[in-house]
Amino acid sequence: MRAEIVATGDEIRTGALVDSNSAYIADQLEQEGIEVTRHHVIGDDLPMLVSLFREIGGRGEVAVITGGLGPTEDDLTTAAAARVLGVDLALDEQALEEVKAYFGQRGRTMPPSNRKQALLPRGAERLSNPIGTAPGFCMIMEGCTFFFLPGVPHEMRRMLQEQVLTRLRAMRGETRAFRLTRVISTFGLPESKVGERMAGIHSPFPSIKLGLRAKFPEIQVKLYLNTTDETEGRRLLERATEWVSEQLGIHVFSYEERTLAEEVGILLKRHGLTLALAESCTGGLLSNWLTNTAGSSDYLLFGAVTCSNESKIRVLDVSPETLGHYGAVHEETVREMAQGARRVAGATYGLATSGIAGPHGGTPEKPVGTLCIGVDGPQGTRSRTVTLSFGQRVMNRKLFAMAALDLLRRTLLEGPVRT
Amino acid sequence: MRAEIVATGDEIRTGALVDSNSAYIADQLEQEGIEVTRHHVIGDDLPMLVSLFREIGGRGEVAVITGGLGPTEDDLTTAAAARVLGVDLALDEQALEEVKAYFGQRGRTMPPSNRKQALLPRGAERLSNPIGTAPGFCMIMEGCTFFFLPGVPHEMRRMLQEQVLTRLRAMRGETRAFRLTRVISTFGLPESKVGERMAGIHSPFPSIKLGLRAKFPEIQVKLYLNTTDETEGRRLLERATEWVSEQLGIHVFSYEERTLAEEVGILLKRHGLTLALAESCTGGLLSNWLTNTAGSSDYLLFGAVTCSNESKIRVLDVSPETLGHYGAVHEETVREMAQGARRVAGATYGLATSGIAGPHGGTPEKPVGTLCIGVDGPQGTRSRTVTLSFGQRVMNRKLFAMAALDLLRRTLLEGPVRT
Repeated sequence: MRAEIVATGDEIRTGALVDSNSAYIADQLEQEGIEVTRHHVIGDDLPMLVSLFREIGGRGEVAVITGGLGPTEDDLTTAAAARVLGVDLALDEQALEEVKAYFGQRGRTMPPSNRKQALLPRGAERLSNPIGTAPGFCMIMEGCTFFFLPGVPHEMRRMLQEQVLTRLRAMRGETRAFRLTRVISTFGLPESKVGERMAGIHSPFPSIKLGLRAKFPEIQVKLYLNTTDETEGRRLLERATEWVSEQLGIHVFSYEERTLAEEVGILLKRHGLTLALAESCTGGLLSNWLTNTAGSSDYLLFGAVTCSNESKIRVLDVSPETLGHYGAVHEETVREMAQGARRVAGATYGLATSGIAGPHGGTPEKPVGTLCIGVDGPQGTRSRTVTLSFGQRVMNRKLFAMAALDLLRRTLLEGPVRT
Repeated sequence: MRAEIVATGDEIRTGALVDSNSAYIADQLEQEGIEVTRHHVIGDDLPMLVSLFREIGGRGEVAVITGGLGPTEDDLTTAAAARVLGVDLALDEQALEEVKAYFGQRGRTMPPSNRKQALLPRGAERLSNPIGTAPGFCMIMEGCTFFFLPGVPHEMRRMLQEQVLTRLRAMRGETRAFRLTRVISTFGLPESKVGERMAGIHSPFPSIKLGLRAKFPEIQVKLYLNTTDETEGRRLLERATEWVSEQLGIHVFSYEERTLAEEVGILLKRHGLTLALAESCTGGLLSNWLTNTAGSSDYLLFGAVTCSNESKIRVLDVSPETLGHYGAVHEETVREMAQGARRVAGATYGLATSGIAGPHGGTPEKPVGTLCIGVDGPQGTRSRTVTLSFGQRVMNRKLFAMAALDLLRRTLLEGPVRT
């Protein structure tokens, strides 16, 4: 089965908004074993919408369209669909009830303009929207099944799962092929090195497709497999994952698309360990990543963002002599910062960063990209100096934070959580 | 002049990667006054590439294509372009020199596979790539001018600016229309309210187009104007900006697409003021936003991420009685946190957050979305409790951080930096 995807709207056409809906839809369809052949973007323009729907109808089996179902005059998708079918728009009473209920649950009455959203092409099948005002609809045009969904991402995603994928599965019946995927997240090797180590995968696993994806600052290895036998497919994917794991070793940090911060949180929580942070160059990014996870206060006790030397001395008890002698960006300084954060918070581990994220502040001895990391814990204190530069402050800071978390992860794996 | 945009590659087609290149190109072309009519995405498939290029050639005036210029067998864009023109591929000596020089500057010799990148369709004009290995090229097919660029975003952007836009300007000569734009960033009013206040703009400014853009958690008002008279256009846009500013008042925080954190940083720096942060629910996000700006250590002296009550007491000297009596999420607690951070760092201002970002931890009295903000400074201490919930922890935290920064911004504008 082959599918095309359309995103509509002047904001996307003119580049004011990046279309992330189409990538989500493509990924979901491909995982169902449906081949996505093309995506299209066009604006709020009735003749162009009509012409594109005719073009796709004459060619495809499935089309998923997002956007243009709203209450305003710019929203023309429904009118275009009706015109392609040669039918008029008819009030769908159930859709009207759902739009009214949406406002009712929020203690509001439906504005008159929203009545337009309950007008569907005559004969179309309504797709209920449980979390927004725009119902979708489904209809067959020139032999192709079209699914029309709202453009608001969280509404679209829910409706795709609940209304579209279920219908597609029913349409395909017993013969459907699965696409199984596995994402293996790595840090610390450049993309080219990961690629070299993966080069031999086709010989033991000829049916598995490989994709490398630089999701800065991670490198993800993605394994794909199209199969009609789910059990056998999962077994094969498992064996291929083990093969990848042997090639990449300690550089792999997740097999479940978790972030490095999530994996570190899981390690800490599982073993009842706690953490305190002392950040200079990463400026709160480590704290932010770790606290994005609900329940992180179980293990992250305290984070200090100590930009000034003054605050390193006052809060973390870093010695003024150390700062005077070595400067802020030095292994001795980050060791004292990690020790200080751990002591202040009474945590099992302390993790500290100090470095030069740029664009200014570099010297010949300590160029932009220099990072010192300190880890203090039951095994003692360790520190590292690395040079990592991507030319942009914000990217350097992400790389710094990843490198620091990775040193902590390795320390945890060598020490109390050894497997 | 009308343009179409094509992104190629299986990673984009299958949704493994979101195509952000097309939005960037569309925005740049529209700013030049060139109307973008359609975007397309297709995979690494020679017959489909050939057929799409023919389709666009028969319809358009300009096309910009990204991706598929790499050294591997999957990279088919150049071959497809040659096939449409009915020419063969010829080695471009200058392109080969540039690819070799790219490797040479990095102390490496060019791998043999990269020689493929210097093969261009015979008769095509080379577009140099100063920061990568894939040169682009430009050619006329069926009356439409095609620009082929690499898919790596920073290479594509630089080549679009230096090679494509300059050629397009030359093609259009004297008659070109400018698109002038102005982005006005607001916080604190929902999109519908901003829309209501903007509703009357067409009567005093009929030639100005209005766009509202929810760039969570900001709402941006975008004003557009197509004109051939740049001076008069800028004057008109300036007057319209003043009109918008009157309607939205204190909710406007930037006219230059700066973030709220950048604007707060500018206010602090301009007046020689300093800041210390005490974050609970925002978990380092405020620190991270502020320190994303180079030079932020001039005004951000210290940030504390105090998740545990213990760390609030030890580091910020919050009284255990306050925490015991009122709990962590309370105006009295954030007042003491703000005072504590300010005192520890010796800063002009202290800013503190404590709240419930969810998904757990809500109670009937303090539901998920409850946020307490404290600001301490030369004018004394102020605090606010607000309820802001977007249903997702990460979104709630962003909203919390924006609300806290906005209270600081308003405090600064009322106090020492009054204009």
